[in-house]
Amino acid sequence: MDRTLELAMDLIRRPSVTPHDAGCQELIAKRLARSGFAIEHLRFGDVENVWARRGTASPLVVFAGHTDVVPPGPLETWTSDPFEPVVRDGRLYGRGAADMKSSIAAFVTAIEDIVAQASGHRGSIGVLLTSDEEGPAVDGTRRVVEWLTEHGVLIDYCVVGEPTSARTLGDTIKNGRRGSLSGRLVVNGIQGHVAYPHLASNPIHALAPALAELVATEWDRGNADFPATSFQASNVRAGTGAENVIPGRLELDFNFRFSTAVTDALLRRRVEETLDRHGVDYEIAWTLSGQPYLTPRGRLVQTARAAVSEVLGIETELSTTGGTSDGRFIAPTGAEVIELGPVNATIHKIDECVAVGDPARLALLYRSLLAKLLL
Amino acid sequence: MDRTLELAMDLIRRPSVTPHDAGCQELIAKRLARSGFAIEHLRFGDVENVWARRGTASPLVVFAGHTDVVPPGPLETWTSDPFEPVVRDGRLYGRGAADMKSSIAAFVTAIEDIVAQASGHRGSIGVLLTSDEEGPAVDGTRRVVEWLTEHGVLIDYCVVGEPTSARTLGDTIKNGRRGSLSGRLVVNGIQGHVAYPHLASNPIHALAPALAELVATEWDRGNADFPATSFQASNVRAGTGAENVIPGRLELDFNFRFSTAVTDALLRRRVEETLDRHGVDYEIAWTLSGQPYLTPRGRLVQTARAAVSEVLGIETELSTTGGTSDGRFIAPTGAEVIELGPVNATIHKIDECVAVGDPARLALLYRSLLAKLLL
Ligand SMILES: [Zn+2]
Ligand SMILES: [Zn+2]
Repeated sequence: MDRTLELAMDLIRRPSVTPHDAGCQELIAKRLARSGFAIEHLRFGDVENVWARRGTASPLVVFAGHTDVVPPGPLETWTSDPFEPVVRDGRLYGRGAADMKSSIAAFVTAIEDIVAQASGHRGSIGVLLTSDEEGPAVDGTRRVVEWLTEHGVLIDYCVVGEPTSARTLGDTIKNGRRGSLSGRLVVNGIQGHVAYPHLASNPIHALAPALAELVATEWDRGNADFPATSFQASNVRAGTGAENVIPGRLELDFNFRFSTAVTDALLRRRVEETLDRHGVDYEIAWTLSGQPYLTPRGRLVQTARAAVSEVLGIETELSTTGGTSDGRFIAPTGAEVIELGPVNATIHKIDECVAVGDPARLALLYRSLLAKLLL
Repeated sequence: MDRTLELAMDLIRRPSVTPHDAGCQELIAKRLARSGFAIEHLRFGDVENVWARRGTASPLVVFAGHTDVVPPGPLETWTSDPFEPVVRDGRLYGRGAADMKSSIAAFVTAIEDIVAQASGHRGSIGVLLTSDEEGPAVDGTRRVVEWLTEHGVLIDYCVVGEPTSARTLGDTIKNGRRGSLSGRLVVNGIQGHVAYPHLASNPIHALAPALAELVATEWDRGNADFPATSFQASNVRAGTGAENVIPGRLELDFNFRFSTAVTDALLRRRVEETLDRHGVDYEIAWTLSGQPYLTPRGRLVQTARAAVSEVLGIETELSTTGGTSDGRFIAPTGAEVIELGPVNATIHKIDECVAVGDPARLALLYRSLLAKLLL
């Protein structure tokens, strides 16, 4: 079996549901130590992180990623156990197969190959791993970057292994990400009996017209680097469970992925203005998870495009769509940051998978990129 | 102590939390048997019911009610034990004081007085008791009415002892009730990541415009006997709990209290048409808990109004508002049905109570009604 595939399977077998690492980082740290990396285990709060570096010279090329995965959801809806990787019909199945244990496996084998080929490479190689990317992302990459800054470590080029590909491996590189702004809305009503609605105030009814307007709103049209801002509700809860009781309270969670064509302040103001105009009695708690970031089309972007073309024989597209990634914490240090990884069609879903050959192809791609930057 | 008050307290002392009867029916059956009633204990499923009748002639005047009560909730929130009746500050406290053990006690003493006064009254008197009104209401009055129909028993006039009064005893008679139609809506979406909304389908978004329309709809304007039909959502649930996941499914419970100006079929069709027009992918399970019923302003309504005026010295109002009651099972047999009982301000609540003199006043009222119909 291919060694990248084998390592990806070893990682999937560790049920590292966020914020747990379940031993993934220890496994990788051991492999990197064998290739001459100095290892720092950086635990912040409950979160395991690793910073590994080989060499001290510039430029510093870093692979960054996360060992945690999102919860699998109801196990019985999976065709096979999400934490028992299997190859079936040409695909590798398991939670984390695409997001992002194949990438992490490919980091390791690409590095091992480069080091075996040229142990005296230029610059240095770093690996930054966290187990807090799918969760609050507070004690993960953000804190590691603070630690690196305090220790005078400056990253020149950073490749984040997020699953950026759309249809086929390498077809998309992210050179930036939208911002993420979350709101937790509480609508206040007055509980009562459904037969006496005039004595109650139904928060589901109060919110309905405002919510219909929010989901229909065009927030912006995006710009040259970013797609249009999108609004998505993720959770809604109201009701006592009894069918004859009008609830006294509704909770709605929602999230904006926003471009540089708006600001988080403007989005907050427009949401509140809509709720006010519909007379909704509410409180809202806002969380700005990340401002948008953008890496200009410089050396790293050009090198990655060339590597994709040579190794995979396809043209790659630049994109800034999709979720936030820990790239948002690294880009502000001045590093050139790109994200490049597996096809994301099944991430966070039931029966998450990648093509069985993609872990090995990804390792070749990362190896080519390293070679172009450091050999 | 007044004998109606005493009997009400004896009944409250029996903790007949639905569907349990806790010996209430046995106590009443014994009293009625002493007044010359033939007793039928009708057990359906787990539910105790009693049918008692004195005489065989027409017209048949029936008192109907339930011995079960709703659960008391946390005992420590009650000022005194809900199943140890006490008189305090001019009020009788205990679970069932208003809903509806005072009414049942008043049935019994009113009947005893009439029989003592005129053992050869016209027509006949019936008493229908169930212990399944506050629960599913499947094996209670509904089944007793089927049994009566099978046995050729036709009720002419029926007084249900539900707590219909608003501020003072006798101020409100219900001569009908709205229908109750419930829907459990499931909106199907496609789960995904909030950052990739084009790969998912958000059921909260899909429902929002349709729900805004449903809550704004005027279903009818009611009619001379009924208030307008009302739609109320009681529970809504969607989301995995994670803030970055678009849910794959939304569940919404809702309920119509509907007048005779519409039909349940029409309401179902209008809801489904609205969802269809907005392109919602859904399933819906409908439960018709009760058709509306209406007793025209005939002999029973007129007699009850006259009795309230004579005994209590107030004018009474006719109403069809509020929840459903077991009257919905009796009215379809062709009986004239009214509901007339205590003040309902504290029903189903902590510290349920009635004015201490109301059980006795209610007995006088029922006795006057019986006298006007049968003497
Ligand atoms: Zn990821
Ligand atoms: Zn009742």
